[in-house]
Amino acid sequence: MSGRPPPEQRSAYPHFLEIPTRWNDNDSYRHVNNAVYYEYFDTVVNRFLIDNDVLDVERSAVIAVVAETHCRFFSQIAFPSQVHAGLRIAHLGTSSIRYEIGLFRDDERTASAQGHFVHVCVDRGTSRPVPVPRKLKDLLGSLMVSQPTEC
Amino acid sequence: MSGRPPPEQRSAYPHFLEIPTRWNDNDSYRHVNNAVYYEYFDTVVNRFLIDNDVLDVERSAVIAVVAETHCRFFSQIAFPSQVHAGLRIAHLGTSSIRYEIGLFRDDERTASAQGHFVHVCVDRGTSRPVPVPRKLKDLLGSLMVSQPTEC
Amino acid sequence: MSGRPPPEQRSAYPHFLEIPTRWNDNDSYRHVNNAVYYEYFDTVVNRFLIDNDVLDVERSAVIAVVAETHCRFFSQIAFPSQVHAGLRIAHLGTSSIRYEIGLFRDDERTASAQGHFVHVCVDRGTSRPVPVPRKLKDLLGSLMVSQPTEC
Amino acid sequence: MSGRPPPEQRSAYPHFLEIPTRWNDNDSYRHVNNAVYYEYFDTVVNRFLIDNDVLDVERSAVIAVVAETHCRFFSQIAFPSQVHAGLRIAHLGTSSIRYEIGLFRDDERTASAQGHFVHVCVDRGTSRPVPVPRKLKDLLGSLMVSQPTEC
Repeated sequence: MSGRPPPEQRSAYPHFLEIPTRWNDNDSYRHVNNAVYYEYFDTVVNRFLIDNDVLDVERSAVIAVVAETHCRFFSQIAFPSQVHAGLRIAHLGTSSIRYEIGLFRDDERTASAQGHFVHVCVDRGTSRPVPVPRKLKDLLGSLMVSQPTEC
Repeated sequence: MSGRPPPEQRSAYPHFLEIPTRWNDNDSYRHVNNAVYYEYFDTVVNRFLIDNDVLDVERSAVIAVVAETHCRFFSQIAFPSQVHAGLRIAHLGTSSIRYEIGLFRDDERTASAQGHFVHVCVDRGTSRPVPVPRKLKDLLGSLMVSQPTEC
Repeated sequence: MSGRPPPEQRSAYPHFLEIPTRWNDNDSYRHVNNAVYYEYFDTVVNRFLIDNDVLDVERSAVIAVVAETHCRFFSQIAFPSQVHAGLRIAHLGTSSIRYEIGLFRDDERTASAQGHFVHVCVDRGTSRPVPVPRKLKDLLGSLMVSQPTEC
Repeated sequence: MSGRPPPEQRSAYPHFLEIPTRWNDNDSYRHVNNAVYYEYFDTVVNRFLIDNDVLDVERSAVIAVVAETHCRFFSQIAFPSQVHAGLRIAHLGTSSIRYEIGLFRDDERTASAQGHFVHVCVDRGTSRPVPVPRKLKDLLGSLMVSQPTEC
């Protein structure tokens, strides 16, 4: 585990969403199951897109599908904690967007988990990659960080 | 479907918990999957018990296990809605507790779904039913409704 | 809990699907969470419909939505058990279908849990109830039991 | 997306577990949600440990907690597919084990998704890292590949 970057602070993320844990997020070890962290990732990203009117799941001609995800777990989270999910953009490619996410438990200052989530924009009908739409690109500018940390 | 009771109002429930939906609560029909409603039931009940210090998942000598659950679905809920979960007690037996739950979408006044959730108190070691502990009984009084509606 | 019907035998169900448990089906009590039983219900019903070519999630003009579900829990199931989900039809209405399901753990002869699951056929565009399509009706005949047990 | 390694063949994995998809594995895009792939990862790893008697969730003095997970998604999987989860060991450290997993849909020869899953052995009471137990180490030898592919 040497060489692991230390967990980040909340200030590393320009946008946050609060996500309460649920009873059955916990697994047999009585902490939130690792797969559930990716439900939090998915929720903070898609809420950001839907709340800002750049994604309509029923109608958008361009949708974003997940190409890659990754998470490092630093300290456990357990129901009934509140998760504060921080979101930023680390890289904006022609068709792809690399989101980085930090999950903070209750009022803790350092992240319990951090990861990334790569979306690729595709044509809904053909599933072929297409350029990131202009409106989405403009929105994502607000989540860009000047010195993206690779994680 | 005739003979179904109509959905209730929020005033039928003395206690509420807000539960935000998650991206993957939705299934292929783009509404919250029926099984997920029971995650909401479980969460409102267990948050009530934990927040009021009558359940400690690691240490309580008496725990509550689920004996029966039921839900009627009146209108669909879909991500990114907020669910407001109402909770009341309809019956308190020697070992068992019948909770009734109403789920209200966003700022709607009538329930999108209603159901019940029966807990049986058991000894953690033997899994045998035991009387509802005094402290829990006292707490549940605050959720009793004078005219419990059977649902 | 008096007055509960006893758990049934496998012979009460004409159709079975084997569903392996998953690590995170277990919750903090190290048994399968109650909400997950409804994932098993949903899976045995929809696999039956899809495998028999009466449901196409992308294209069917008539789809079935869940109006009501119910489950009684008799004995716990825990990962890594295999669940054998038994399925029968208890009632076939104009628009609605009442499935009954028994979940049997590993090679046990009596059900660990039993419940029902009511589907209502609706027009995909309007979401209004429509009669159960002929092809589906014919298929469901194979799951009818002569003396449906109300549960 | 340039520079992505191509998906692997089944022969890259010495051990397999079949995991059927469930109805609600699918999300609004009617394919298996990305978080659910990690449920498959968790299940193939823990079934391997439990089936081989090196993990007892209730009693083992040493348990394994997840330190890091990663997945690349090559092609979609959707209910009602069968997933064949391939498992190998890429690295065995003092306290940590790096599993690599490939998920193959139905009878396809190349992986639909690939990832890794890092377990750290910890003392159950203190949660501090401890050496990988001898019995587990011996077992994992059977999953070692001579030329582990970094993914």
